[in-house]
Amino acid sequence: MRRTDWNAADAATRAALLRRPVQVTAAITTTTVAAIIDEVRALGDAALRAYGERFDGVVLDDWRVGEAEFAAAETALDAELRNAIDEAAARIESFHRAGMTSAYALDTAPGVRCERVLRPIRRVGLYVPAGSAPLPSTALMLTIPATLAECPEIVLCTPPRRDGSADPAVLYAARRSGVSRVLKIGGAQAIAAMAFGTASVPRCDKLFGPGNGFVTEAKRQVAMLEGGAAIDMPAGPSEVLVIADAGANAAFVAADLLSQAEHGPDSQVLLISDSDALLDAVAAQVDLQLAVLPRADIARRALQSSRLLRVDSLAQAFEISNDYAPEHLILALRDARAWLPRVQAAGSVFLGDLSAEALGDYCSGTNHVLPTSGAARFTGGLNVASFQLAITVQEVSAQGIAAIGPCAVALAGAEGLDAHRNAVALRLRECVA
Amino acid sequence: MRRTDWNAADAATRAALLRRPVQVTAAITTTTVAAIIDEVRALGDAALRAYGERFDGVVLDDWRVGEAEFAAAETALDAELRNAIDEAAARIESFHRAGMTSAYALDTAPGVRCERVLRPIRRVGLYVPAGSAPLPSTALMLTIPATLAECPEIVLCTPPRRDGSADPAVLYAARRSGVSRVLKIGGAQAIAAMAFGTASVPRCDKLFGPGNGFVTEAKRQVAMLEGGAAIDMPAGPSEVLVIADAGANAAFVAADLLSQAEHGPDSQVLLISDSDALLDAVAAQVDLQLAVLPRADIARRALQSSRLLRVDSLAQAFEISNDYAPEHLILALRDARAWLPRVQAAGSVFLGDLSAEALGDYCSGTNHVLPTSGAARFTGGLNVASFQLAITVQEVSAQGIAAIGPCAVALAGAEGLDAHRNAVALRLRECVA
Repeated sequence: MRRTDWNAADAATRAALLRRPVQVTAAITTTTVAAIIDEVRALGDAALRAYGERFDGVVLDDWRVGEAEFAAAETALDAELRNAIDEAAARIESFHRAGMTSAYALDTAPGVRCERVLRPIRRVGLYVPAGSAPLPSTALMLTIPATLAECPEIVLCTPPRRDGSADPAVLYAARRSGVSRVLKIGGAQAIAAMAFGTASVPRCDKLFGPGNGFVTEAKRQVAMLEGGAAIDMPAGPSEVLVIADAGANAAFVAADLLSQAEHGPDSQVLLISDSDALLDAVAAQVDLQLAVLPRADIARRALQSSRLLRVDSLAQAFEISNDYAPEHLILALRDARAWLPRVQAAGSVFLGDLSAEALGDYCSGTNHVLPTSGAARFTGGLNVASFQLAITVQEVSAQGIAAIGPCAVALAGAEGLDAHRNAVALRLRECVA
Repeated sequence: MRRTDWNAADAATRAALLRRPVQVTAAITTTTVAAIIDEVRALGDAALRAYGERFDGVVLDDWRVGEAEFAAAETALDAELRNAIDEAAARIESFHRAGMTSAYALDTAPGVRCERVLRPIRRVGLYVPAGSAPLPSTALMLTIPATLAECPEIVLCTPPRRDGSADPAVLYAARRSGVSRVLKIGGAQAIAAMAFGTASVPRCDKLFGPGNGFVTEAKRQVAMLEGGAAIDMPAGPSEVLVIADAGANAAFVAADLLSQAEHGPDSQVLLISDSDALLDAVAAQVDLQLAVLPRADIARRALQSSRLLRVDSLAQAFEISNDYAPEHLILALRDARAWLPRVQAAGSVFLGDLSAEALGDYCSGTNHVLPTSGAARFTGGLNVASFQLAITVQEVSAQGIAAIGPCAVALAGAEGLDAHRNAVALRLRECVA
């Protein structure tokens, strides 16, 4: 793991150290995805069937998960996993419910009632990848806020396995949140189907969830297309930044770096410390733990581009972190909470030695769909509001028109918008008369 | 104005009636804007100076508005306009302040503290167009939520007038909200400068505000570029949909349709009613009012593509409205409030005959930066949260690890992520020991 003394680095080196690798989407990916979207729009379910055969190696006459498959999934899971899913779900639900925005109303003038009401987004599409391992945790992170928002139509797509079934843990997680419209469709074709609709897939207003390069590119493309769907957030490789002081537990820090690194070879791993001894100890621990890790190959590749930064002070570490705006920020500091006010941009923060980042991935209660690639400069992670609309409302009485009408008339006049002025003036005349 | 009986129309006609005109950005606009962005990134302030001369017809040595210009602006405004701005600002501020989200915290398990904290987005860029008329109301709608969010760096760009000064009403509005970093830069070059930064313009994390076709295209492009800025929302022509019953005041409805139509020839104007008599009366009123309107030419062109829809029931009107998802929705209905629960997708709603849409544009208190082009299917208008980040935080004690660690271990195991499991298991061992 490469170590740099931040204060010995010039501006260009510093910028390079914080630069994320540019996500180059291969031209072939872009073209392939565009072709898939076109074909799904043109041929609908027939295209989904053909792509399913080609990419998932399975032909399904009906990709809807039925009662029998849900029931079989529940029986297939061992009790420990079922309990873990239930337990995680309960905490995720309690945290998300507590953070729900409320409607509000106030009279901004006598007779002028202004309010904000909330509505669920009507049709939402969730995507839960399968890939190397099933992701029941992602199913929880998407279905729980969607059901708390009471979206009337929720559809969840997940790739079928070779035998045509869906992963039982994902099914169990979705079902327990109350989402029973699960379709065994994967990849870019699932995104295209949810964005534009087919005979068997409802057209969705907004799409959520992670995925591989094809899924990510498909989300990007449908969000740009006329009549396409909105998406939850721009997606990039997962990231962790750890700020650790001399007192941090090197084994824990190493374990957190590795749990980030095992996500994929493009995972971003940064450690910043004001202590050389800690940096040494963590590097040694990484080697030690890496030796016994099944996904060591992936982790090793991610660690090659990891960065260990030596700073003069923790204050400097926070400046760097705020500029980088990491998805996950671990504060392995003696008085971590006292440092929290310094955090200006991050997706999710883990305070102290015991708050492993993996707890947030699964079951602390917070959402693990978080901004990457520096998007934490301007947005937070998924929450119930991501599945809602806030609509403003105004109701003005005769008294209200008298109170605020002249103000609108004056401003419309200044802006040269006579029809605006007229619309208010007409009512003013009527109410005074 | 063309009238259609909704129930006599086939599905294709219905779809066509609700279809918005595709916003075709001329290839020349796309190319021009891309060239402007490139040049601003490469040459910085020199490019801004050159474009200012070319597009605004004025060469400025310093585009920052100084104390003298702010003071002169205040004196230049007549008292009525100053008061109207003050009055509107007070109501906008009270409504936006009341809707601010709060931080919250809860223990999701003994020893597991989860919370959501809020941070202002660090650097925000606001754009206030000038064009045919100054827009002090837009300055208020952008600066008030930005200052309520306490964004530490707020920059506002607005095009200079021919004499090199900025519009005094815009300056007065910005200054009274506490925004004093106003730069006289317009068009795509202003957006490029705020997204990437120059010697005189800070690089911003997120850009806000309306603008002409070049500004809109520039926002779209910088939002797509690596290292660019986020933007408030996709922009399209302004829209109103009015649902009126037989008892509605035809003169008021006509005035609201016209105040939408005068925005521009591409404004979208829809009226839905279950009463032929009302539709007749509104059509007659539109002709009458149009005759004396200074911007009649623009309004007439917008009205050519307006739609008057005759429905069988108000329930049907709401179905159409929810599918269309209008920016502004006027309910000119006898018991408007009772119908509000039917509204599932809209930017801002105006209840009853007296709630002129223009009141929301200026001074009811709600924001006038709202979703267009159907984006109200999935997002609301500007509010304080648009200028904030929500960051989740977790703090786990030894008791907390004991409580939730096993759940994380089980889920990480099921997902085949051993380093994740290890990061929690290590801590569990330490805490039990």
